[in-house]
Amino acid sequence: MPQQRTQQTVKIIPLGGLGEVGKNMLVIEDQGKLLIVDMGLRMPEEDMPGIDYIIPNITFLKGRERDIAGILITHGHLDHVGAIPYLVGKLGSPPLWASPLSKGIILKRQEDFQRQPKLKIAPIEDGKLLRIGPFSIEPFRQNHNINDNFGFVIETSVGKILHTSDFKFDDSPVNDPPTDYERLKRFGKEGVLLLMSDSTNAEQPNHSLSEKVIMENLDEIFKQAQGRIITATFGSLLNRIQQIITLSEKHGRRVAIEGYSMKTNVEIAKQLGYIKAKKGTLLSTSEVLKYPDHKVTILATGAQGEENAVLMRIINKEHKTLRIQRGDSVIFSSSVIPGNERTVQFVKDHLYRQGALVFHYKMMDIHASGHANEDELKELISYLKPKFFMPIHGQFSMMYAHADLAQKEGVAEKNIVIPENGNIINLTKNQVSIDKKTVPSNLIMVDGLGVGDVGEIVLRDRQNLAKDGMFVIIAVVDRQKGTVRGSPDIISRGFIYLRESKDLLRDVRRRVVGIVDRASGTGGAVNWVYVRDQVKKEVSDFLQKKTNRRPMVLPVIIEV
Amino acid sequence: MPQQRTQQTVKIIPLGGLGEVGKNMLVIEDQGKLLIVDMGLRMPEEDMPGIDYIIPNITFLKGRERDIAGILITHGHLDHVGAIPYLVGKLGSPPLWASPLSKGIILKRQEDFQRQPKLKIAPIEDGKLLRIGPFSIEPFRQNHNINDNFGFVIETSVGKILHTSDFKFDDSPVNDPPTDYERLKRFGKEGVLLLMSDSTNAEQPNHSLSEKVIMENLDEIFKQAQGRIITATFGSLLNRIQQIITLSEKHGRRVAIEGYSMKTNVEIAKQLGYIKAKKGTLLSTSEVLKYPDHKVTILATGAQGEENAVLMRIINKEHKTLRIQRGDSVIFSSSVIPGNERTVQFVKDHLYRQGALVFHYKMMDIHASGHANEDELKELISYLKPKFFMPIHGQFSMMYAHADLAQKEGVAEKNIVIPENGNIINLTKNQVSIDKKTVPSNLIMVDGLGVGDVGEIVLRDRQNLAKDGMFVIIAVVDRQKGTVRGSPDIISRGFIYLRESKDLLRDVRRRVVGIVDRASGTGGAVNWVYVRDQVKKEVSDFLQKKTNRRPMVLPVIIEV
Repeated sequence: MPQQRTQQTVKIIPLGGLGEVGKNMLVIEDQGKLLIVDMGLRMPEEDMPGIDYIIPNITFLKGRERDIAGILITHGHLDHVGAIPYLVGKLGSPPLWASPLSKGIILKRQEDFQRQPKLKIAPIEDGKLLRIGPFSIEPFRQNHNINDNFGFVIETSVGKILHTSDFKFDDSPVNDPPTDYERLKRFGKEGVLLLMSDSTNAEQPNHSLSEKVIMENLDEIFKQAQGRIITATFGSLLNRIQQIITLSEKHGRRVAIEGYSMKTNVEIAKQLGYIKAKKGTLLSTSEVLKYPDHKVTILATGAQGEENAVLMRIINKEHKTLRIQRGDSVIFSSSVIPGNERTVQFVKDHLYRQGALVFHYKMMDIHASGHANEDELKELISYLKPKFFMPIHGQFSMMYAHADLAQKEGVAEKNIVIPENGNIINLTKNQVSIDKKTVPSNLIMVDGLGVGDVGEIVLRDRQNLAKDGMFVIIAVVDRQKGTVRGSPDIISRGFIYLRESKDLLRDVRRRVVGIVDRASGTGGAVNWVYVRDQVKKEVSDFLQKKTNRRPMVLPVIIEV
Repeated sequence: MPQQRTQQTVKIIPLGGLGEVGKNMLVIEDQGKLLIVDMGLRMPEEDMPGIDYIIPNITFLKGRERDIAGILITHGHLDHVGAIPYLVGKLGSPPLWASPLSKGIILKRQEDFQRQPKLKIAPIEDGKLLRIGPFSIEPFRQNHNINDNFGFVIETSVGKILHTSDFKFDDSPVNDPPTDYERLKRFGKEGVLLLMSDSTNAEQPNHSLSEKVIMENLDEIFKQAQGRIITATFGSLLNRIQQIITLSEKHGRRVAIEGYSMKTNVEIAKQLGYIKAKKGTLLSTSEVLKYPDHKVTILATGAQGEENAVLMRIINKEHKTLRIQRGDSVIFSSSVIPGNERTVQFVKDHLYRQGALVFHYKMMDIHASGHANEDELKELISYLKPKFFMPIHGQFSMMYAHADLAQKEGVAEKNIVIPENGNIINLTKNQVSIDKKTVPSNLIMVDGLGVGDVGEIVLRDRQNLAKDGMFVIIAVVDRQKGTVRGSPDIISRGFIYLRESKDLLRDVRRRVVGIVDRASGTGGAVNWVYVRDQVKKEVSDFLQKKTNRRPMVLPVIIEV
C-alpha cells in the first residue's frame, strides 16, 4: 500500500544551508506536494576564483515543477532570497509568500536581471494562517537584524514542523517588537513534532547581545566624536542602519548613505516605513559635506573590506568626494566574516595611517550578531519541547554543537538527526531518520551570465593558472619538409617576466624544434598528438627544473 | 663636519616586520657600521597566488656589504630566521650570532638549499656581552613559545637601544626560566635611550595566559580522553610540544610525531636538551599504533588547515597510516592565523563528521600566544623608562595601539615614532625622528627558485587568469592571398567548458576571420599589430557580452 505510506511519511530535503553558512533552501514533501523554504545564495570559497555566487542545486526538483505548491521566504537577506532570480524561472515560476520588506527586496533585485518571469508574491503577516497545498502554516515574527523576519509552524500530515528562520531573542530590539515568549510556549503546548533551528551561533556561549547594548555603546562614540563619523556595516543590516540614523538625529548630525546595496535597501525600507528618518536627516553626500564635521555622519558599505565597497574606495583615494581626514571616527559595526580578516586588517591599518580613529567590535560591543547563542537556543527548545530535532543553517561543527544542546535540553539522541545538503529526512509520527538515498547537492557556481557552467575542470584550471601561469608554444611545421618554420612562438602570462628570461625562452625554442625535427625526420607519417604530448612533457620538466614552477604548458603544432 | 655628525646620529632602518606580522629584519647603523637584527620571512597574502614566501628587500644594503658587522638572531622562528638562506649569501656572508637552538634550526634549514655558502654562527649566551663592530650587546633571555629566545641591549654611540624580540612575561613557563623582572628594572636604571618593542598583541587587553594555565587545561582533556589523542600545533611551538610530551608521559601514553617540520625541530631540540622525553616515549607512528587507543598520542602539524600538513591528509584519507576513528580527541593547540579561518573550519567539520571530539582555543584556554598583551607591554615600559619609543613587529594598527600604551606609561608623544618598513629613523641623544628619505621596501616574492623575479605584472596576470581564465586565438594567414587558412585555433582554459560552448567558439572564429579578411582585403601592406589589437578588442567585447566574463584574450597571427 504505497499510497498509504506516502501519507504517513513527510520528507524533508535540505538543498542548502547545512554544513555551510549561506544558500539556505529546503524542501518539505507531504502527500506528493512540495513546499520550499527560502532560496538563498552564498559567497564563493577562496579557492573559487572568478566565481560570483554559489546557489542551491535543484536537480532534485527537475520534472517535479508541477508538484511545487509554493515558496516561503523567511526574510530578505541574500542568503535566503539571493538565488530567486536564478532558480524560480527554472522551477516554472511557482508562487512565493514573503513579508512586505522581503517582497520589496526581492522585487528590487529582480530588476537587475533581464528577461525574468514576473514573480507572484503573496503576503506574509504575523499570525495570519497560510494555506499552501496540503500545508497549513502559521508565520510568527522572530527577532534578527533585519525587520520582517518570520519563523513558520508548518502543519503536515504527520504533525507540526517548526522552522525558526535565522533568529535571536531580544527583549529590547530596535524598530521591532521584542520576542514573544508566550507564543513560543503556546507552540510547545500545541505540540511540535520536529524543530528545525538556526545553528549559526550554536558554538557561542551565553546569550546574544541585545541591540540596546549596541545602541548605548554607539551613543558613547557619538558623544565623544569631534569630527565626522563614518560607519561601515552591511547594506542589509537595516536595524543597525536605523540605529545610526537615530543616533545621528540625537546628536545633530546629517546622514549620507554611500553604497549601492545600502542605498537600495534603505529606500525600500523607508518606503515601507521600516526605516524612520526625520525630514532633512538623509542627504546626499555632497550636501552633507557642506555641514561642519561634527554634524556629519556617513553610512557606508565596506565593513568586510570588500574590493569595490565605499570604505575601500575611500582609503585607496579612489572615491569621488570622500577622503579620510584627521579626526574622523570610523566605526566598524559588523563582525568579520571568516576569510575576510586580512582585508579588514588592511583597511584598519590604512585608516590609522590616514589619521582616523577606529572603533571595531573587538574593542567594544558595537555589533551584535543576529543569531541566537547557546542560552537562547536551549531556551527555545525548552519552550517548544519538540519530539524530534534537526539543526539547520550552519557549518557542521555548529550543527553538531546545536544537536548537543538539544540533547542537554532533553531531546533523546535517537530523535535527533544531523543531515547534510542532499539528504532525505524521513519523518513519521514516531521516527525521524536519514535515508540512504541522496539527491544531488554538488555546488552550482554562478559566474557572470553562466549558471552551473563552471565546473570542477574549469575551476581547477583557474587555480593552476593562478599558481604558476601559462606557457603556450606555437610551432608551425612545414608539411613537406617536416621541419619547424622559423622560431616557435611563445606566449606566457603569470609565469615569469619574459623580458628577463631570454635565455630560458631560447632554450625552450631549441628543445621544441629538436623534438619536432626528431619526430618528423624519421620519415613516414608523423603522430602529431604524440609530438604534442612530448613537447608538453619535456617543456614542463625543463621549466620545472629551471624555475621550480609548473606553468600550464600548452603546445600548438600547426602544419602548413 | 659630516664625520662628527655621523658619530652623533645612529640610524635605524627597518626592512621588515613593521606594518606586517612576519619577515622581521632591521638594521642599526652607527659610525658607518651596520648591525642587522633578524632575517625573517612571511607567508604571501591571498592575492599572491603561487608565491611561496615574502622576504625583506635588501636593496639598501647593496654596495655596503663590507660595512655589515654582523647579524644578530633573536630566536629560531621562521619569521625571524627564514630569509637567511635567500639573503646571507647576497650580503657577502657576514657572521651571525645565534643561541644554540636557533643555530640548530638555521643550520638544519640551510641543508634544504643547494650551493649555499657555509654560515659562520657564533653563540649567544644569556648575559654574555658581545662585541660586534662598534656595538656592544647584552643578550637577555625572554619568554616566548620557543626556547632560547633573546632580547638585546645594544650599546651605541648615542646610548642604549633595547630590542625586545618577540616576548611575553610568564612567571610559570614550560621548560624555561620565568621572566627576570629584576634584570629588566636594572636595564631601566642603567638608562634605555630607545625601546623597540614587540607589538603583535598590543591590541589584546590584560595579561597573556601563562603556559601553566594551558598545561592545566590540556591535562583535563588528557584525563577525560578515552581514545587516542591527536594534537595539532605548529612545528615550531617547541614549548607546546614539550607540554604534550610531558602530559602523555603522565597519562601513560606513547607519542608519535607526524610532520616533517615538527620532526626536524624536535630532533634538533632533543639533541640540544631543550625537549625532554623519557626513553620509550617517542616512537614511530607504526609502533605507537600497536598500543591500545588510550595509550596513544599523535603530535601532528596542520592546526592551520595547511594543505599538505598531517591533519589535512588524515581527514582527506590520504595519510598512509592514520584515519580518524570514533573516540579520537583532536586538540587544536594553536590560534588561527588571520586568513586561515575557513580552512580550519573545513578541517573541524570533517573531524566531527568522522566521529572525533574536537577541542580548540575558542572553547577553552588550550593555547596561549607567545606575545605580550597590553598589561605586560605597559609593565615593560614602566621598568625600562625609555626616553624614546618605537613599536616594532606588527600590523600598523597594533603599532599604533602600542604607541598609545607607551604614551600612557609616560613617554612623551614627540619621543615616539611609528615608522614603516623602508623608513630611516635618526636617533640622537636628544631626538628621534623619521627621515624624509626612504630606502626600497617593496615586496620581494619567492616563487620556486626565483627570488624577486615575480613582480607586479606577473602577479596581476595570475590574478586575472584566476578570475576568468584565458583565451588564445591562433589565425594562420596566407601571405599571398591575405586570407585566414582554415579555421582559427582556439585554446582556452579556466574560462568556460569548451565542449558545451561550440556555438560561442564558432561565432568567435567567424569574427576573427572577418576582421583579418577585412584588414587584408583592402590591398596594400597590412598592419598586423593593428589587426591583432582589433581581434583582441572585438573578441573580448563579444565574450563579455555573451558570458559577462573577461578572460585574457591573446590573439596570435601567423603569416605563412
